Amino acid sequence: MKKLLIANRGEIAVRIIRTAREMGIATVAVVSEGDRGSNAERLADESVVIGPAPAGLSYLNHEAILAAAAQTGADAIHPGYGFLSENAVFARRVRDAGITWVGPTPEAIELMGDKSRARQAAIEAGVPVLSGTDGALDTDGDIEAIADEIGYPLVVKASAGGGGRGIRRIASREEVRSTVEVAQAEALAAFNSREVYFERFVTAARHVEVQIFGDGETWVHLGDRDCSMQRRQQKVIEEAPAPGLPDELRQRMRDTSVELARQSAYVGAGTIEFLYDPQRQEVAFIEMNTRLQVEHPISEAITGIDLVREQLRIASGEKLGYTQDDISFEGHAFEFRINAEDPENNFMPSPGRIEQLDLSGGPGVRADFGFSAGQTVVPFYDSLLGKLIVWAPDREQALARAARALDEVEISGIKSTVPLMRRLVALEDFAAAQHHTTYIESVSGLLEGSAS
Amino acid sequence: MKKLLIANRGEIAVRIIRTAREMGIATVAVVSEGDRGSNAERLADESVVIGPAPAGLSYLNHEAILAAAAQTGADAIHPGYGFLSENAVFARRVRDAGITWVGPTPEAIELMGDKSRARQAAIEAGVPVLSGTDGALDTDGDIEAIADEIGYPLVVKASAGGGGRGIRRIASREEVRSTVEVAQAEALAAFNSREVYFERFVTAARHVEVQIFGDGETWVHLGDRDCSMQRRQQKVIEEAPAPGLPDELRQRMRDTSVELARQSAYVGAGTIEFLYDPQRQEVAFIEMNTRLQVEHPISEAITGIDLVREQLRIASGEKLGYTQDDISFEGHAFEFRINAEDPENNFMPSPGRIEQLDLSGGPGVRADFGFSAGQTVVPFYDSLLGKLIVWAPDREQALARAARALDEVEISGIKSTVPLMRRLVALEDFAAAQHHTTYIESVSGLLEGSAS
Repeated sequence: MKKLLIANRGEIAVRIIRTAREMGIATVAVVSEGDRGSNAERLADESVVIGPAPAGLSYLNHEAILAAAAQTGADAIHPGYGFLSENAVFARRVRDAGITWVGPTPEAIELMGDKSRARQAAIEAGVPVLSGTDGALDTDGDIEAIADEIGYPLVVKASAGGGGRGIRRIASREEVRSTVEVAQAEALAAFNSREVYFERFVTAARHVEVQIFGDGETWVHLGDRDCSMQRRQQKVIEEAPAPGLPDELRQRMRDTSVELARQSAYVGAGTIEFLYDPQRQEVAFIEMNTRLQVEHPISEAITGIDLVREQLRIASGEKLGYTQDDISFEGHAFEFRINAEDPENNFMPSPGRIEQLDLSGGPGVRADFGFSAGQTVVPFYDSLLGKLIVWAPDREQALARAARALDEVEISGIKSTVPLMRRLVALEDFAAAQHHTTYIESVSGLLEGSAS
Repeated sequence: MKKLLIANRGEIAVRIIRTAREMGIATVAVVSEGDRGSNAERLADESVVIGPAPAGLSYLNHEAILAAAAQTGADAIHPGYGFLSENAVFARRVRDAGITWVGPTPEAIELMGDKSRARQAAIEAGVPVLSGTDGALDTDGDIEAIADEIGYPLVVKASAGGGGRGIRRIASREEVRSTVEVAQAEALAAFNSREVYFERFVTAARHVEVQIFGDGETWVHLGDRDCSMQRRQQKVIEEAPAPGLPDELRQRMRDTSVELARQSAYVGAGTIEFLYDPQRQEVAFIEMNTRLQVEHPISEAITGIDLVREQLRIASGEKLGYTQDDISFEGHAFEFRINAEDPENNFMPSPGRIEQLDLSGGPGVRADFGFSAGQTVVPFYDSLLGKLIVWAPDREQALARAARALDEVEISGIKSTVPLMRRLVALEDFAAAQHHTTYIESVSGLLEGSAS
């Protein structure tokens, strides 16, 4: 690999450029007209403007990105997360153009992108799943009987969905038929497929996940993460390792995740996401993400392994060169997503010019940001400014460090979610790891800053 | 310990405040009139202005600092490095005022401050020393004969000196008497003591050192560091562990350093400094610093131990709680001292308003800075803006990461040593660890940026 094109923007483009530079790989940033002057453009060796600001015309534009690769002679493409990272069609076009795709095969993306096939693969690998339909629901059959057997409440999910999209809750037998029909119509509109399936609904669930990595011959996990602190089903704080999991369950989750990777001959970085039910002390498979996660730095923090470096090495045809026994886990890490949003105005995006961006430093603090002071946050994309990652020898110290680090951050010119992050780290429920995926919405006043 | 006064400024004051905050200890910053609005003042819970900008009237002013402690009810004082950190008189006054001194006893400071007594203590602990006089030189005796036996060139050093001060080189027998007399006169003027001693002079020497720590009952080392990249006898880049040391020598250096700490019943953090002679593959004791070092973060990076936390714990009366076997070393770290100096004007201090201060981030990068954009560097103190610390799994990766991180830094409004740091990390001699303490001066054009 001589020259890497990064088909993304913001903090993840900067993140990937950093490791490529350390490895002596030249970098090409593709930027939309809205991202001229961004740090990705500044830090890359070359840049190509690929189209107007709306992502459909630039970061999602296959032809423009492939043309930029041809024009610059890039021999590899890293898709980052989001955008085209789980698009099997694009991955195949990259491969067919003779360019290295930094990610799993298009076939693996397709398998895991089909949620009922993925569920079936998980079952075959011994990954625990929620009781539900095995494969797609046969809607011509007695779906009320199937729902009765799973128990209420349950959820109906679009097979082609993912990331929290295409899910509807069913509270009772009476709602089964009508909700399934609505879900099918929605799935058809959103994902071009009517396929849906049932799963048991878990209340006060936690979101846990396992980072796996493989070279096609050897597979390892890089530990687990907890991403239960969410707002509107979007992760806002993640931590590694996941707190409060029974040892045996944690081990089973890790082992079966590696087995799922092995059975699908997976190549590269992937994440197996689980629901954890603290009442029953059970985990269940949600889905597998066939790309780098936003929260990958916390796994890097506890293992010392640079995941992007591993991605680029394996994509270049190198072998892993180590096994599970060589990976050791040290300490505890948190990641805080700092968004350009206005906490006092229902978290509306807050684009504008960043006047001041003083991040924190000192021991155990890492800042991954896509912006610098003086730059402008444009309104066309998600509102992630960057991430603050903290590490310490244990969870208690890491939490104290996080509070300290967040206190130091000063951002002016735009509104940010830093005040919300400060409130969240101060919560006793968070210190006790008693939060869950709908926790934020369940605490009155928390989002407005008036929670006691 | 409830409230800690930090008797220092700049990056080290910020560094100490950070850990104190994480431990729930309230902080008091003492600031000179020149440091109003500094980050130390901003981040501390309280601040007291202790006098005009010149350090003699503020940061070296015992009465003003003790008055600030009394006024704020601080029950502990951390001196940082420099200023009063190795002042036994002040340490004793702090102790006598019933305030906890975060550092070793005044007696330990005095012992190690007397360079010929320190040398004697080192010999008793089995620490290798350079051939030279055991204890102070008897200048009434036949000092030419003593010099002949050590061999030329040799150095005459002031017993009360340290940190590279009070040292003169003697090239031949003819120079012995006159140089000793000059050295005695200088020592008297600078340190109020005529005592001097001889030591063999090592050409192309490397500076290595061992970080030790103890609670008065248990002593450990936190590995070694190399600080050979110096300019005018001031360290500019440090790394841990020291590269290229024979295993047996490294172990002996570490073991005897711990033994020296044990024999002097040392409490707190200390550093044993050595000369390393790559030709002879020998190390020799230089001195012991009885305080935190500027370069302590690289030891933190390879051990995961927060040294300031350990200092505050032990000063509070806690015990270490672990032994040498519990400390593991991972990877390699570099520290780069970023000074406000003008590389194109003989590295004159470059005070002024910082317009832009964009530091680096991403995996393995830590920034410890005393300043933010918009603040002003005043001309009254040393010119250290802050330090960039990088960690990676091995030295080669750490060096590549350092180059990447330094490339990203953007400072405007003042001149900085960043361009010199970029040149230094790119040197083949540095990659091969072939540099030594006078290396920078020995390479023509390096300081001016014209070295090939």
